[in-house]
Amino acid sequence: MTRPFVVDIHTHVYPPSYMEMLRARKTVPYIHDPKDNGTPRLIILSSDDDPAIPIDERGRPVDSSYSDTNVKLDFMQNHGINCSVISLANPWLDFLSPEEAHTWAKRINDDLNSTCMNINQDADPDSKLPLREKRTLFAFGALPLSAPTPDIIVEEIYRLSSLSHIRGVIMGTSGLGSGLDDPKLDPVWEALEKSQQLLFLHPHYGLPDEAFGGPETTARYGHVLPLALGFPLETTIAVTRMLLSRVFDRFPRLRILLAHSGGTIPFLAGRIESCIAHERKFKENGGDVPGPQRSIWEVLKTNIYLDAVVYGKAGLQAAISAGSTDRLLFGTDHPFFPPLDGQDEKWLSVITNYTAIDEALKEDQASVAAMLGENAVRILDLK
Amino acid sequence: MTRPFVVDIHTHVYPPSYMEMLRARKTVPYIHDPKDNGTPRLIILSSDDDPAIPIDERGRPVDSSYSDTNVKLDFMQNHGINCSVISLANPWLDFLSPEEAHTWAKRINDDLNSTCMNINQDADPDSKLPLREKRTLFAFGALPLSAPTPDIIVEEIYRLSSLSHIRGVIMGTSGLGSGLDDPKLDPVWEALEKSQQLLFLHPHYGLPDEAFGGPETTARYGHVLPLALGFPLETTIAVTRMLLSRVFDRFPRLRILLAHSGGTIPFLAGRIESCIAHERKFKENGGDVPGPQRSIWEVLKTNIYLDAVVYGKAGLQAAISAGSTDRLLFGTDHPFFPPLDGQDEKWLSVITNYTAIDEALKEDQASVAAMLGENAVRILDLK
Repeated sequence: MTRPFVVDIHTHVYPPSYMEMLRARKTVPYIHDPKDNGTPRLIILSSDDDPAIPIDERGRPVDSSYSDTNVKLDFMQNHGINCSVISLANPWLDFLSPEEAHTWAKRINDDLNSTCMNINQDADPDSKLPLREKRTLFAFGALPLSAPTPDIIVEEIYRLSSLSHIRGVIMGTSGLGSGLDDPKLDPVWEALEKSQQLLFLHPHYGLPDEAFGGPETTARYGHVLPLALGFPLETTIAVTRMLLSRVFDRFPRLRILLAHSGGTIPFLAGRIESCIAHERKFKENGGDVPGPQRSIWEVLKTNIYLDAVVYGKAGLQAAISAGSTDRLLFGTDHPFFPPLDGQDEKWLSVITNYTAIDEALKEDQASVAAMLGENAVRILDLK
Repeated sequence: MTRPFVVDIHTHVYPPSYMEMLRARKTVPYIHDPKDNGTPRLIILSSDDDPAIPIDERGRPVDSSYSDTNVKLDFMQNHGINCSVISLANPWLDFLSPEEAHTWAKRINDDLNSTCMNINQDADPDSKLPLREKRTLFAFGALPLSAPTPDIIVEEIYRLSSLSHIRGVIMGTSGLGSGLDDPKLDPVWEALEKSQQLLFLHPHYGLPDEAFGGPETTARYGHVLPLALGFPLETTIAVTRMLLSRVFDRFPRLRILLAHSGGTIPFLAGRIESCIAHERKFKENGGDVPGPQRSIWEVLKTNIYLDAVVYGKAGLQAAISAGSTDRLLFGTDHPFFPPLDGQDEKWLSVITNYTAIDEALKEDQASVAAMLGENAVRILDLK
């Protein structure tokens, strides 16, 4: 049996220039260098920036895995990954002032494109091999969402189409600051639809601490509540707001990849549809507000792609059922969730996701190969 | 083929006395009678009590389906339901003053028990039939959670064991006011475990409006965001907090039925486990706080039961995979989600849940029969 070609669709980087920018900051997001020359700390969640935690212990350690491409290539080698589609990690450029946003977006996107180009053309260590047996990189670009006008964002989307190794854009759920149901985003959706750039939608902001019982309760369990629940629930709310504001009705060819198998969208799709069908406010049900015309089930089969970063067979089965095996894409979330002892070559988080795919699809090796890489090659034209 | 025996495990009532109590109130929860003698309005969510909405249009219409047992029996007849396990609808007794809580709990629980007894013994209309072909009722009791001390709650739990038609208790996620990871709840968990009363955990409070983008965004889409997302996400957070605070380690025989197929717990179980395994704060990972000893997967197979109120095959498959076909229980959420025109005999919301079960298990009629009723008969001793 031929070993499947594996593409990692969910793998993050902070280019060195982005790291320097974070180092110069003192408010979230920022990087803090401990006094004892220990590993720098990355503080990207407001819940991490808790004054009750000593500053040298806040956030998480950030080592060279975040910015050194060779570390990424070693990780790929250790985990049987042939190709990675790298993306700037959260919080992307959301926090930049309007003046800096466009400059940084162009710089980061050009850096990402050059990195991929250099690796893919690089002779070392395996240039004699055909492309599909090398380790290769492609990238999702970042958008200057805090730019003074959407024109600048649109301009960057079209410019990305001219960069040889960019295959879409990564975006958070904040949009222009008011969420993804903001009508001011229409020019952005239009440009993404026209250019057929895939939008990788990724959480960052989580939920307010009150949702978890207040800041003290949130902190009690470390990062578990914000990361295990806050992230996927944020994605779920963002996509539902897009649906309800009829983004998918107005831009029916928009292509969107949802992180963490859609947050919880595959599981809740039925309840969302039922609540829409029973909502008296919508015109279709006798109210005065137009409701969404296309169902979440249809959107899941035509607009939405899901990564397979869900760490279990149960979630993956819901994702497969709501989407389909040809719309699911393997991912790792590297460099997040590394082994705690820093020593295991094979990461538990990655093995868990590989195992979930095998368990959910063990009778169907063609679908396993599709999810592990062939879907990504086809959908993103990775050649 | 014998028609399966169908049990509705998720079906609510407001006994007439409870309705009168709500009518006397002016703050959430309350019932408002419009000036034009129109159908009374029930305002139970704080998001419904929006001053921007005319008071005669706030909340939802509340008709006799909430309190008239004959309406429940007709609904059962129309939908092929043989037995209903009725429960007080949210917000239960959470809002009562400490002085009134115990009195009301006893009154409501005695009323529920009498209602079930009268129906099950009733000669009309079909007393000549064997019990399994009659329409029968059992009930979950309500707890006086705002009582001055947990002793009173514990006393009521044991008293419920002496009532012939009570088969467990229904509870929200607020607990004694601080959530279900509150150590002060330990006597309650202990009493539930010892008496083996099933705890039906049901959402009510949803998420703060900020999670949805603020009150204006929440209101824009009617009830969809609070009901479709707020409810299941509330359940998800509550159960995760129970797990993280080691309730299931301390009370390994606690039996808990989760509304709406667990909120999103089956889908997120893998991510929750992965985040726990990577949390440095936990002793098991080198930190100083004891982490949960039993995995969410184990708890799903031993402590948790799930209703099948998830409105789609995708969600149901995740629930089956995370739980098992012998731990899933059919439900309707009656009298909520009625047909909007008020005329359809067969409710869309109920048909959707029946169809999901058929689609998820079409090759396995034994599991269909188990989920539709046999599991409930066995687990709750419905005879």
